[in-house]
Amino acid sequence: MSSVSAKPPSGMRDFLPADVVRREHVVRIVKEAYARHGFVPLETPAVERVEALTGKYGDEGDQLMFKILKRGEKLPPLESTTQPSDLTDLALRYDLTVPLARVYACYGGELPRYFKRYQIQPVWRADRPQRGRFREFYQCDVDYVGTRSLLAEVSVIGAVREALVGLGFVDFTIRVNDRRVLAGLMEVAGVASEAQGGVFTAIDKLDKIGVDGVRAELAQRGLGDAQIACLAPLLGEDSDRGDAERLDALDAVFASGSSTGRAGTASLRELFSLLSAEGLTAGKVSFDASLARGLSYYTGTIFEVALEGLASSVGGGGRYDGLIGMFRGDDVPAVGFSLGLERLLVILEDRGMLPALRPGADAMVLWMDAPDTTGFVLDLARQARAAGVRVEVFPEATGLGKQMKYAESIGIRHVAIVGKREAESGRVGLKDLVSGEQTEVAAADLGAALLERVGAR
Amino acid sequence: MSSVSAKPPSGMRDFLPADVVRREHVVRIVKEAYARHGFVPLETPAVERVEALTGKYGDEGDQLMFKILKRGEKLPPLESTTQPSDLTDLALRYDLTVPLARVYACYGGELPRYFKRYQIQPVWRADRPQRGRFREFYQCDVDYVGTRSLLAEVSVIGAVREALVGLGFVDFTIRVNDRRVLAGLMEVAGVASEAQGGVFTAIDKLDKIGVDGVRAELAQRGLGDAQIACLAPLLGEDSDRGDAERLDALDAVFASGSSTGRAGTASLRELFSLLSAEGLTAGKVSFDASLARGLSYYTGTIFEVALEGLASSVGGGGRYDGLIGMFRGDDVPAVGFSLGLERLLVILEDRGMLPALRPGADAMVLWMDAPDTTGFVLDLARQARAAGVRVEVFPEATGLGKQMKYAESIGIRHVAIVGKREAESGRVGLKDLVSGEQTEVAAADLGAALLERVGAR
Repeated sequence: MSSVSAKPPSGMRDFLPADVVRREHVVRIVKEAYARHGFVPLETPAVERVEALTGKYGDEGDQLMFKILKRGEKLPPLESTTQPSDLTDLALRYDLTVPLARVYACYGGELPRYFKRYQIQPVWRADRPQRGRFREFYQCDVDYVGTRSLLAEVSVIGAVREALVGLGFVDFTIRVNDRRVLAGLMEVAGVASEAQGGVFTAIDKLDKIGVDGVRAELAQRGLGDAQIACLAPLLGEDSDRGDAERLDALDAVFASGSSTGRAGTASLRELFSLLSAEGLTAGKVSFDASLARGLSYYTGTIFEVALEGLASSVGGGGRYDGLIGMFRGDDVPAVGFSLGLERLLVILEDRGMLPALRPGADAMVLWMDAPDTTGFVLDLARQARAAGVRVEVFPEATGLGKQMKYAESIGIRHVAIVGKREAESGRVGLKDLVSGEQTEVAAADLGAALLERVGAR
Repeated sequence: MSSVSAKPPSGMRDFLPADVVRREHVVRIVKEAYARHGFVPLETPAVERVEALTGKYGDEGDQLMFKILKRGEKLPPLESTTQPSDLTDLALRYDLTVPLARVYACYGGELPRYFKRYQIQPVWRADRPQRGRFREFYQCDVDYVGTRSLLAEVSVIGAVREALVGLGFVDFTIRVNDRRVLAGLMEVAGVASEAQGGVFTAIDKLDKIGVDGVRAELAQRGLGDAQIACLAPLLGEDSDRGDAERLDALDAVFASGSSTGRAGTASLRELFSLLSAEGLTAGKVSFDASLARGLSYYTGTIFEVALEGLASSVGGGGRYDGLIGMFRGDDVPAVGFSLGLERLLVILEDRGMLPALRPGADAMVLWMDAPDTTGFVLDLARQARAAGVRVEVFPEATGLGKQMKYAESIGIRHVAIVGKREAESGRVGLKDLVSGEQTEVAAADLGAALLERVGAR
């Protein structure tokens, strides 16, 4: 038995108490922001039918999925003709969007016409573990299903913006683009649809290889000079101009060349006008034609959160009018935004933005002279708890010094000290282990005295 | 695509918003009670190494475990000689105790000497689904690791008792026994250890087949009259006597026959004395020699929560001094108590003990005359949210009647009504859809007016 590793599985983590309280703090703020915008919580099983997931995330997704072996009689005999796909019937949730689509198909009639849901749960992907990338991680998704109105975009962007503000971020930008702008540019540039993936791969390297590098790669991929010129907005070369000016420039490009592109710029104009009418309290929203995101299922607006001084994004999303209906076979408009919990946590910790949070008791009762004092001590602790304080009792009436040392070692600040004298007089010592201050209170007042020191919960 | 079932996997459930808020309400109360006793939160991955779980839960457990197929190159070729056990490397968490033992072995040095942890997470078992039994369900565990002191028992019993009180239960009994009392009775009755399992199986049927039925089954299993007489305390035939009297009777039985039994009764006496010293505010604690629980790993005190009018238990636990050390190969004393979340929820709902909880916005802004009013409406909602109210905006400026009907259909009580006139005057209509009362407030005061109506969050 002792030869079995005590570590969690590769790429997965145990959250010790100090971790849990930090994670809960962040989740609570995100939830509150989502709820304040009228989103309601949904939870789905960790496990989905394997056929509900396969083919939804591309080949890579199918490779990275954790699949569950069939049990009992369902498991076919193992032979050389048996296929791995015969062996599994379930798989761990890979994202929160497919479960949303499934729920929408399953309970459509019970759900409100505009289904504004948030979901904060773990997902599992068998990616190669590396710093900051885990095989079990939490997504904080907020989605607005059931309308093509841009107020849905305003709503999810507003909810995420408020979550970021609630966490203390001020230096963030929500970069916004529209899938149709990208499609329009491809159309104008005459890039065949099968070549578009390669173009986006090249453009994705902008940060690493610079504009000239991207231009070279585009040429290498067979694009002519004129085509590359058409794609200039994707290279961020116009970034010194304002949003409106850049939209104007695109409109000029699209005027005769792409009605799809024009639909994209018109929608972006309206969205920016709505967002500025709402009034920004922190962060900013800006147009970025080079923003592409995983193009597969987005159909309109796309967005991503960029934090000052951080290359990668902490979240993103967009409009995907074709996905939610996949289980029903129809089109249901939807727009969603997802924040990555672990990435947020890393940044909040790196930047010292988390408040001091400590799990565990506010106070500990240290005691001597058992068994005469035992009943007094237990009743004392119970009364203090009834007042709302977190109180524990040292498990044995051993030497006071040892108990005090232990209380200090686990970060307890307040200790009540009880011996025979205190049990008889009904007055107990109360010591602040940080300030060293010591006082005496009536047993019945211990809860109130502690509450005053630690604040109400 | 549309042929794939939209239902969750067999035995698993989606929690729609109204379910989630009920579950969160119960979890919050349980957590608070556990934390008030100084327990700290732990979270572990949904997935464990398969070798960390197999053999820990008996053959049945190994059958009911969800095991995960190896991925990529790790998956061996499928041949007639391949064993199912070659195919899996991970499995879904089956309970919260083995993960605690693993964590204790992995981070022992970082953990406090007395590790008082709670853990509220799902576990997965491939049981045949039936009413009230699910394949994904939540356990609310509280464990005190690191001491043989009975104050650990007092602590976990106190935490669970307070959770039950917090949920509104008053009519519950915590039935308490000690593993050593059972062992002592077997010793005195001369039941060989290999026959003890059968004896407990028979006694477990007490509720169904009555005392005479159990006696008959014990005789059938080969026990003589004298042996059966020795086991009388297990049949609850002394239940009209008080706890102390029954312990006295057992002591008389154990006096010359079992030192193990005497250790059990002595420990129970001390525990009851501690529990009565602490002072009970609700529920009661009582000795029940017939309480057996899954005997495999308990070593001392065992307990179970019984609710008035409910045959099955909502939780239980006990002392298990041999389990936590399994990954390290030593003995670590521990005592734990676990509440079943779904069972609690069923009872709370059946008995109407849950408060009225509604997810979603407190208020909705209904509006006309877009686009002139759009900016005003968005800013109005943002300001109200900033005051702490949950506010959403109807996604389109369609007919007011339609919007009003929708707000009502999703249970929104308060609506703010905005048209051109309101946007110009800066005063908006505020209507209570329950009382029908309608008033007018300045746009800047909407948040405060709503807060007054819905209460601060």
